[in-house]
Amino acid sequence: MPAATTQSNGRSFGRNTLEVNGSSAAARVDRLLGFYGELVRGRIVALLAHGEPRRYLYEPLAVYPKRRGKNLRPALCIATTLAFGGTLDRVLNSAVALELLHNAFMVHDDVEDGSEYRRGGPTLHAQYGIGIAINAGDALNALSISQLMANRSVLGSELTWRILSELEYLARQSVEGQAMELGWVQDNRCDLTEAEYLRMILKKTCWYSAIQPSRIGALIGMAAANDLDRFNRFGYYLGAAFQIQDDILNLVGDEEIYGKETAGDLLEGKRTLSLIHLLDSCTSGEKERLSRFLASPRVRRRKREVDWILRLMKNYGSIDYARSRARNLAGAALAEFDEAYRDAKEGEPKGFIRDLVRYMIERRL
Amino acid sequence: MPAATTQSNGRSFGRNTLEVNGSSAAARVDRLLGFYGELVRGRIVALLAHGEPRRYLYEPLAVYPKRRGKNLRPALCIATTLAFGGTLDRVLNSAVALELLHNAFMVHDDVEDGSEYRRGGPTLHAQYGIGIAINAGDALNALSISQLMANRSVLGSELTWRILSELEYLARQSVEGQAMELGWVQDNRCDLTEAEYLRMILKKTCWYSAIQPSRIGALIGMAAANDLDRFNRFGYYLGAAFQIQDDILNLVGDEEIYGKETAGDLLEGKRTLSLIHLLDSCTSGEKERLSRFLASPRVRRRKREVDWILRLMKNYGSIDYARSRARNLAGAALAEFDEAYRDAKEGEPKGFIRDLVRYMIERRL
Repeated sequence: MPAATTQSNGRSFGRNTLEVNGSSAAARVDRLLGFYGELVRGRIVALLAHGEPRRYLYEPLAVYPKRRGKNLRPALCIATTLAFGGTLDRVLNSAVALELLHNAFMVHDDVEDGSEYRRGGPTLHAQYGIGIAINAGDALNALSISQLMANRSVLGSELTWRILSELEYLARQSVEGQAMELGWVQDNRCDLTEAEYLRMILKKTCWYSAIQPSRIGALIGMAAANDLDRFNRFGYYLGAAFQIQDDILNLVGDEEIYGKETAGDLLEGKRTLSLIHLLDSCTSGEKERLSRFLASPRVRRRKREVDWILRLMKNYGSIDYARSRARNLAGAALAEFDEAYRDAKEGEPKGFIRDLVRYMIERRL
Repeated sequence: MPAATTQSNGRSFGRNTLEVNGSSAAARVDRLLGFYGELVRGRIVALLAHGEPRRYLYEPLAVYPKRRGKNLRPALCIATTLAFGGTLDRVLNSAVALELLHNAFMVHDDVEDGSEYRRGGPTLHAQYGIGIAINAGDALNALSISQLMANRSVLGSELTWRILSELEYLARQSVEGQAMELGWVQDNRCDLTEAEYLRMILKKTCWYSAIQPSRIGALIGMAAANDLDRFNRFGYYLGAAFQIQDDILNLVGDEEIYGKETAGDLLEGKRTLSLIHLLDSCTSGEKERLSRFLASPRVRRRKREVDWILRLMKNYGSIDYARSRARNLAGAALAEFDEAYRDAKEGEPKGFIRDLVRYMIERRL
């Protein structure tokens, strides 16, 4: 397991990276995210096209997949397999499984967090009710396992087993991380440290969004089981940069592009790095008012108060602080990339993964 | 797959079976349910004793296991293995997995149905909130898979794989059945047939509660993969009798013993066999009033209306009808038992399973 804090042990990016050298790289990342993602999305939509019962199961299951997503996890997994010499047909089931699992997490998280928008539309429970949505999440989980089991005829028993073991580990990490976050909201914790936050996102986000997609991709690409732990640090830094950028976009992003309600995390009381920084920086009077806001039920949280918190975050540099941490983490990920992917052959897939690191902190979606 | 309706193709029980010949059999069933169940419950409680985070994950996970349950699924699985010549140490992981899975279903079902009581206490979401409860259900699912994967060192790759495949099938059947039931409530379906009801409980209940525990138990006992489909009919009839008896206890059972609120299913609008019979038997005026009751939000459903429905069910013989169907199904299960367990050796485990059939429809818990 990687250390829960990062020092400036990686390269760092200047503020204007994208403008200076990134436009073709950003376009390449977009193109390949779209290409790998569409392969996976097509498989998922086909998979859900004929099941019964339709209206209350297979139709809701297809709602999030049909909206445009980032395709980060399957794309990272596929590109890693290709970079290590594997082929698309060998990795597709696993990439589909990772995306189904991500959809399952989204559906349940949205209920757990009381979120209202996802990928530019109403959340599944807002559209179909909580019962149908929870059951749909369970179904997505089950379908994800089915996909991994379908690996057996393509990859053989041993590799299939290894990948299933990766998933088993990942599932436990994710529920533990999610429980930490939910518990902090329920307890109205206002004294969290950055180290606690990083440990939570390692468990909640990094394993399933970055570490395991890399590990599984490498397992399939190399068709062997050697030294996967080198992907842990890379995936941790990458996943943490991704999550912090996600939190920032939630605070300041364009709702139209980002697809969730602006500052939804504040309405949900989520403990983001910016909020933790703010609670640690503000006066005791401000902290008391913040704590009252966070303790009140969501329906009582007013837009006016949210605007006040956003102003406070700007005044105390809390959003800039999170940006600089995301940049450091991305720099650390880039350094670890060279180590983790040292045996991968140069080419489009490897280049894509390298560019993905920068993309993580410069995306607006 | 068994036919969705049963004729009088099995033995039937008289009304007073238990009183006439059953007291020692009932005591034996209770004792072995307790014995097998405690083995499994002990393993589960130990499994959950040390995980972190405690208060918002591993503590809630242990709530239902710590309350007294029926232990039906693990007991059926263990007894089947023993009856087919297997040993306890070979079946324990799978029995634990089935009980964990059942706990996962209970936790999510309780949220989906808006239930308030379970096993004599508040439901998990009533105690911890919806978010923590959904996440706890996901964790129980993940732990269930971990247990099945732990089979590999005890049972070898091939048998472990076969059992995982059983689980994969079961998981899909269950979410499809649950979606049917949730959809009927949401659509306020008042025109359902008994065949539709039986198909729903086959998917929602029978696979994971009876068919698969038998199939998995037999797989392990025989250490081979031959002819498992003979357990399908047995498990279907047994599981259906169990579910109908469960519905009856919900309507007329003693809250203290049964552990759920009386007529909770009516408050939740569940389409039970008694309700379907009533809707098919009553006058059009009564049907209209029933339909209005079922269409109103749960909080608006009055105790007075529930009492009226219960009176109506008694007048039209709807509960007696369900009782007679449960009895027929149990009779059919007993006939199929002889076929499914024909190669099992006589002895306590086989006798337990035979007695379990009758117990299903005579239990008060």
